[in-house]
Amino acid sequence: MLLAVGSLAFDTVTTPSGKVDNVLGGSLNYFAIAASLTEPLDIVGVVGSDFPAEHLAWLRSRGIGTNGIQVMEGKTFHWEGSYDGRLQEARTHQTELNVLADFDPQLSPTQKAATAVFLANIDPVLQMRVIDQVQAPGLIMCDSMNYWIASKRPELEALLARVDIVCFNEQEVFALTGKGSLRQAAKAIQYLGPSIVIVKRGEYGAMLFYQDSVLFVPAYLVDAVVDPTGAGDSFAGGFFASLHKHDITIDTLRRALIQGSVISSFTVEDFSFRRLGSIQIADVARRTQALLAMY
Amino acid sequence: MLLAVGSLAFDTVTTPSGKVDNVLGGSLNYFAIAASLTEPLDIVGVVGSDFPAEHLAWLRSRGIGTNGIQVMEGKTFHWEGSYDGRLQEARTHQTELNVLADFDPQLSPTQKAATAVFLANIDPVLQMRVIDQVQAPGLIMCDSMNYWIASKRPELEALLARVDIVCFNEQEVFALTGKGSLRQAAKAIQYLGPSIVIVKRGEYGAMLFYQDSVLFVPAYLVDAVVDPTGAGDSFAGGFFASLHKHDITIDTLRRALIQGSVISSFTVEDFSFRRLGSIQIADVARRTQALLAMY
Repeated sequence: MLLAVGSLAFDTVTTPSGKVDNVLGGSLNYFAIAASLTEPLDIVGVVGSDFPAEHLAWLRSRGIGTNGIQVMEGKTFHWEGSYDGRLQEARTHQTELNVLADFDPQLSPTQKAATAVFLANIDPVLQMRVIDQVQAPGLIMCDSMNYWIASKRPELEALLARVDIVCFNEQEVFALTGKGSLRQAAKAIQYLGPSIVIVKRGEYGAMLFYQDSVLFVPAYLVDAVVDPTGAGDSFAGGFFASLHKHDITIDTLRRALIQGSVISSFTVEDFSFRRLGSIQIADVARRTQALLAMY
Repeated sequence: MLLAVGSLAFDTVTTPSGKVDNVLGGSLNYFAIAASLTEPLDIVGVVGSDFPAEHLAWLRSRGIGTNGIQVMEGKTFHWEGSYDGRLQEARTHQTELNVLADFDPQLSPTQKAATAVFLANIDPVLQMRVIDQVQAPGLIMCDSMNYWIASKRPELEALLARVDIVCFNEQEVFALTGKGSLRQAAKAIQYLGPSIVIVKRGEYGAMLFYQDSVLFVPAYLVDAVVDPTGAGDSFAGGFFASLHKHDITIDTLRRALIQGSVISSFTVEDFSFRRLGSIQIADVARRTQALLAMY
């Protein structure tokens, strides 16, 4: 069983296309919606009493187990940010942790038996607590962010020692390693533990380092990017949903990269889950053919 | 016959790896050395009386016809620039046109019969004068830069109406079109004339737009980039040397992109032509295999 932990959030986002207030977001949300296009999964997270029950019901209707979502008295995690110009970098205006500040992930017996675990970007201490509860995780993948790299490096490094796959963006990879090239940076991260290093590069696609191999996947070129929020988590969801059932080979990794890239391309075409939440697997298949034609 | 026009220069370059003073450079130089790995060609340009005759002799030894290089009284074009951090952008400290200010390209009868013409980055007025002299160019490819986009837009647009392929970097593509996405920008450029739009993205590879197709090539990942100067011109050289002999199809375009990407990866591994000038076609073949394995 595939298990994922991370954040559910209300996002306030401004991009050149407009502004949305308190729309649904959060790393776990994006990951789960993306993954559920091809795989059922269970999620663990926390929301406030202001969080719409309909959204959780909608997640369940997609095959996402939400028993692990604690509803706590108080407000849901809120992120406010903006993107300028070519939307290459998010500027954070405000982060209100709210109930996320007291999050203590507790896994059910079924969840403890998970065979594949994705740790979306939250405090590495919490990510570690999840790993500690899983009995025999076959495959663990994690994300993180510059904030934890700067403020909790020892905890993050301890986590990486127990992780199989990291899925970081390019800035994080360089911030974590201080190296001057991707090849050197990937080696440095592999030295910390993970055998697979994925480097997300936004509109430039992603690279994957595994043993002596380097794989590349382009980003599917959408006509216009409306909001890149959640693209990285959607990529991770598409990737991990594809990979976790298979032995790791260059072929299964390649297929997973393509699925991640394709699914995340829908995320950026609108705010929140407006586009990602409305596509069908046939849309993924069509865009996969178009992506493969770019090679 | 393949003909190329552009600049030969002395470059003073500072990168995190060090500084070099008055080393050989110039867009035409990089293009020609890259192209000559697989094709003979003729070049048209201007140098000052300070330019080493040995370099021209070395070019000739590579199958590059240098009869079109005028040696003028005075100093060779000089560019001084630097790259910081991850070497993604060149900062220009000084540009001394010197003899390039009086350059007036004159083609010999043989050159006028050229079937494929590359116009490296120089004043679009001069680029146009070259086209005007070629009797029946089968295929014309050109580069440019932000400076001409800003200062000679009408002349550049007139040029583009007569060009088949543009090979611009991403910033130039957006500066020229003012569009928000690559797809839209490529369409806008195709509307101006060229049927093929190549967008160079440095370490992120390159994209090519042709009819309804989008092709992508990653950059070969070198261990460390020493100096990116000339990478774009080397890419163009590898690409055009491969393409110009063939009918244009998705396959010939793809092969040309790969050759461009591979050959430019050698350029960045050292200053000037230290690495590019010392490789053999077998090195290109080896790296091509490695690049194809990334797909």
